Amino acid sequence: MALGNIERMFVLGIDPGLTRCGFGLVEGALEGPETFRAVRAGVLASDPAARVEERLASIYADLLDLYNQVSPDVVVVEKVFFMRNAKTAIPVAQASGVAVALAGARGSLVRQFTSQEVKLAVAGYGAASKAQVQAMVARACSLASVPRPPDAADALALAITYLMVARVESRVAVGT
Amino acid sequence: MALGNIERMFVLGIDPGLTRCGFGLVEGALEGPETFRAVRAGVLASDPAARVEERLASIYADLLDLYNQVSPDVVVVEKVFFMRNAKTAIPVAQASGVAVALAGARGSLVRQFTSQEVKLAVAGYGAASKAQVQAMVARACSLASVPRPPDAADALALAITYLMVARVESRVAVGT
Repeated sequence: MALGNIERMFVLGIDPGLTRCGFGLVEGALEGPETFRAVRAGVLASDPAARVEERLASIYADLLDLYNQVSPDVVVVEKVFFMRNAKTAIPVAQASGVAVALAGARGSLVRQFTSQEVKLAVAGYGAASKAQVQAMVARACSLASVPRPPDAADALALAITYLMVARVESRVAVGT
Repeated sequence: MALGNIERMFVLGIDPGLTRCGFGLVEGALEGPETFRAVRAGVLASDPAARVEERLASIYADLLDLYNQVSPDVVVVEKVFFMRNAKTAIPVAQASGVAVALAGARGSLVRQFTSQEVKLAVAGYGAASKAQVQAMVARACSLASVPRPPDAADALALAITYLMVARVESRVAVGT
C-alpha cells in the first residue's frame, strides 16, 4: 500500500458460509478523516438441498460475479477457526478458501481476520457482542440503522477492520 | 451417468494440501473389464514462505491450468476431516474447497471421499496402510512400480475409488 496515498479504496468483506455468504463493500482511505461509506451489502445463498460439491460451485460462481461487479482493491475474509460443531467448520473453511483464492487470483490484496480481531478493531474489545459490533458498523459508516441481515453487517465489519488496521499501520510506517 | 455407456472416462483425483496438492488422472470405464490406466500424476506445490492467502491463489491458478489441460469428466477430492493438529486442517479444507468449487464451476462431476472410503474401495478394508493402498494402485493400473511421490499415488487412489464405486453402482442400477 503506497504511503502518502490519499486515494479512496474499495474494501470487500466476506463472511463465508456454505449456506449464506455475507458480503459488504466499504469505501475508505488510509489517510485523512476516518469516514467510511457502506457502498453495498447483502448475502449470497446456496441451495441447502444440493450436494456440498454443487453448493461450493454455486458460491464460486456468485463470488466471481460479485468480484467482477465491484472490482475490490482489497478482499477481507473472516478467518475460520474450529467451532463447537466440527462437521460445520470444514464446509465453512472450504467456502472461505474459495473466497480467498478467487480474490487473490483476480489480483485483489487478500487478508483474513478472526472474529475476535474484528471485535477488537471495530468495537474496541475482543469480547464485544455481535449487536455491539453491528452498532459500531452503523456508526462508522454513518448509517441511520444497523445493516441487515446480520451476515451483511458482519461482512461490513470485516471491511472496516481492514481499513482501521491499515490506517494505523500507515501512520506507524510514516512515523519511522 | 448413462447406463450402457461403455465409453471410457477421465477421472482426476486431488489430494488437497496447502503445501502440496497431489493429482492423478486415471482413464477407465463403468462397464467391461476392470482395467484402469494411469495417464498422469504429480504434485502442485505452493511457496511455504508466502502468506496463506497467496498460497491459496497459487493453488487456484495451478488447478485451473491442470483442469484446462486434462478436461476431466470427474474430479474426486479427498474429504477433509478433523486431524490431530487443528491448525493444519483449516488450510487443507480451504485448498480442498478451491479444488471442489473450481472443478464444479468448469462442469466436471465432483465427488469427495474420505481416506477410509479410499482404503475400503482400493485395498478392501478401511484400516489398510498407506503402503498397501499404494501397492493396490500400482496393481489396478498395471504399473511396474508404486507411483511416486506418495501424494500423487494417493490422488490416483482417489480416482480409482470413484471408478470402482461407480462400476458397482452402475451394475446395481442395471439389476433393478
